[in-house]
Amino acid sequence: MRTQVAIIGSGPSGLLLGRLLTLAGIDNVIIDRVGRDYILGRVRAGVLEQGLVDMMREAKAAERLEAEGLPHAGFDIAVDGALHHIDLKGLTGGKTVTVYGQTELTRDLMDKRAGDGVTTIYDAQNVTPFDFDGDRPWVSYEKDGVPGRIDADFIIGCDGFHGVSRKSAPSRAIETFERVYPFGWLGVLADVPPAREELVYGRHSRGFTLCSMRSRTRSRYYIQVPLADQVEDWSDDAFWDELRRRLPEDVADAIVTGPSFEKSIAPLRSFVAEPMRFGTLFLAGDAAHIVPPTGAKGLNLAASDIRYLFDGLREFYKDGSRAGIDAYSARALARVWKAERFSWWMTTMLHTFTEVDAFGRRIHDAEIAYTLSSHAARAALAENYVGLPY
Amino acid sequence: MRTQVAIIGSGPSGLLLGRLLTLAGIDNVIIDRVGRDYILGRVRAGVLEQGLVDMMREAKAAERLEAEGLPHAGFDIAVDGALHHIDLKGLTGGKTVTVYGQTELTRDLMDKRAGDGVTTIYDAQNVTPFDFDGDRPWVSYEKDGVPGRIDADFIIGCDGFHGVSRKSAPSRAIETFERVYPFGWLGVLADVPPAREELVYGRHSRGFTLCSMRSRTRSRYYIQVPLADQVEDWSDDAFWDELRRRLPEDVADAIVTGPSFEKSIAPLRSFVAEPMRFGTLFLAGDAAHIVPPTGAKGLNLAASDIRYLFDGLREFYKDGSRAGIDAYSARALARVWKAERFSWWMTTMLHTFTEVDAFGRRIHDAEIAYTLSSHAARAALAENYVGLPY
Repeated sequence: MRTQVAIIGSGPSGLLLGRLLTLAGIDNVIIDRVGRDYILGRVRAGVLEQGLVDMMREAKAAERLEAEGLPHAGFDIAVDGALHHIDLKGLTGGKTVTVYGQTELTRDLMDKRAGDGVTTIYDAQNVTPFDFDGDRPWVSYEKDGVPGRIDADFIIGCDGFHGVSRKSAPSRAIETFERVYPFGWLGVLADVPPAREELVYGRHSRGFTLCSMRSRTRSRYYIQVPLADQVEDWSDDAFWDELRRRLPEDVADAIVTGPSFEKSIAPLRSFVAEPMRFGTLFLAGDAAHIVPPTGAKGLNLAASDIRYLFDGLREFYKDGSRAGIDAYSARALARVWKAERFSWWMTTMLHTFTEVDAFGRRIHDAEIAYTLSSHAARAALAENYVGLPY
Repeated sequence: MRTQVAIIGSGPSGLLLGRLLTLAGIDNVIIDRVGRDYILGRVRAGVLEQGLVDMMREAKAAERLEAEGLPHAGFDIAVDGALHHIDLKGLTGGKTVTVYGQTELTRDLMDKRAGDGVTTIYDAQNVTPFDFDGDRPWVSYEKDGVPGRIDADFIIGCDGFHGVSRKSAPSRAIETFERVYPFGWLGVLADVPPAREELVYGRHSRGFTLCSMRSRTRSRYYIQVPLADQVEDWSDDAFWDELRRRLPEDVADAIVTGPSFEKSIAPLRSFVAEPMRFGTLFLAGDAAHIVPPTGAKGLNLAASDIRYLFDGLREFYKDGSRAGIDAYSARALARVWKAERFSWWMTTMLHTFTEVDAFGRRIHDAEIAYTLSSHAARAALAENYVGLPY
């Protein structure tokens, strides 16, 4: 088949790009190696920057997000038994974030796409981009044992860190940057009301904690654990006990416990691949970069990639200009690296690092003490948290 | 002899404390292992925070500083051939720094002390504090081969990083924190007008540069060099060439070269000793902490120590309260660590680190890109540069 834009990956970035392209009258096909249910079964975070919320509106896919999303005007940092409020709205001149599960956002976009009647190929095997060094790239795949082929003007790799798109780029053309953190996040999902209306990021000598939520009735909690820990070693009771031990008493007392229906340990990683474009193949989101979840930048960074990429593609098809797509990699990476810096900084400041020397630990202590004591430093934290301008 | 406060070290912190005590009617003796001319021959930096200028006024020793000091309302950061102005005054609600050589400030305080007719013992050998675990500490010394002894209520160690005071503290009671940087600063003093009215901190792939000055006719320039470099290997011509190579063209062109009358390589070090009090022995300034010179915090941090210490001693002698001296170590260290953080951060952001991995280098790039692009981040930089509140 022939299309204008072939998108590999039916996660939020591929779906958002597809929907925006469709509304702009640009033909596109999405292909994914897995199926709709598998994608919707993945547990992901959900703190959305205003820029992403605005894009969901632009994509005419924000009805449920607007109805069910929880606007958050601030969050708390718990340090040494005390809560310190970060007034996002006050510090950024009115900006907020919206808590809305990535899974829900993905579902909304899938539903819109289904309504659009645009081609989406799920459960495709051996998806591979070809000939993207020229103007006639194509994607080969198999579906139910039958070989298929999508010819396109552009291929967009929205297929995540382990996807085929980045791996298809010639290794001599790509430079990667990586930092692996010596701990993981043990996360629990439970259908209990959240301890507080806003998120609490906890810094404690026993390790980091995060009190988060997906809705008013579903809570998401995390604790920092050694990478060697196995999820099987953590009973629900042990999790709740450890979580409460690391939090100020009034927060701990407000936690409603209940059976977890999801419990997993996720490693933390910083990763960037440069550039984000190889001829007519473009990478977006996790395919090109990973951030540790502290600060909730992963999905939002995918959204800013799609912002730049969609604007570039629209310019190309409407005005015949290549300026936007030619600028894509540099524009996207400039914002990516600022978010990488912020995520690394927030991770470093809030976690316990046994490997860091004594001077480094005191610097982490000073970082949080300074940040909480300074209006300018809190404003810098807040502007990054709500999202730097596109 | 008997005094109330025995001060070891006749550098700026010892002299400033002595002068403030004298004006407050508190008897003090300063003892130093070297002489006046040796101390005034040491080349030191000279960017003063407002807090230190205010203390010099309080010490009635600011006449020359007010007449000859150069108020600086901002500085520039040179990155990749472009200058970025940091408007200290605008970003901090009116605060500035004053350029005035530490040597001149020391000379002013020495002259005041000479006028006060207060005891100062120069060129003393084997200066050693004793019995500071109790209320009757004393300092033993020799002068011209004759043993001497100063009995005091308190001993103040203002004798620098290599001084006897910190070394006299029981090793089990002291914890030290250190970071040694893998490069040095090659500095040149020359009697030429500065390239610009304000300082320029330069970031360049060949290494850091600093264009600084002592006065309108005396310039101080620095370049980052490998620690293995010998000052003998750097001719004046080689220095000026390398300096200009790392700076934007218009700055390089404005540099007036001339014969150096001082040229040296200084290592960069972060160091803190905790606590800053051992019974009746108190440490202040470099005796307790060292910062790398990026950001010019060394002398200013000594001044804030003296602020807390003088207030505590005055409270003790005037009101009979030990609250101020009991709080000294914690109060001083809280500010010390914030300045250590700032100096480490500014050093990290502006220098070239060949030892850092590729991810770390990109984070440094992102740090400067973010800082220059964000009003909040520039405000945070500025408030640290002019000095956090006491």
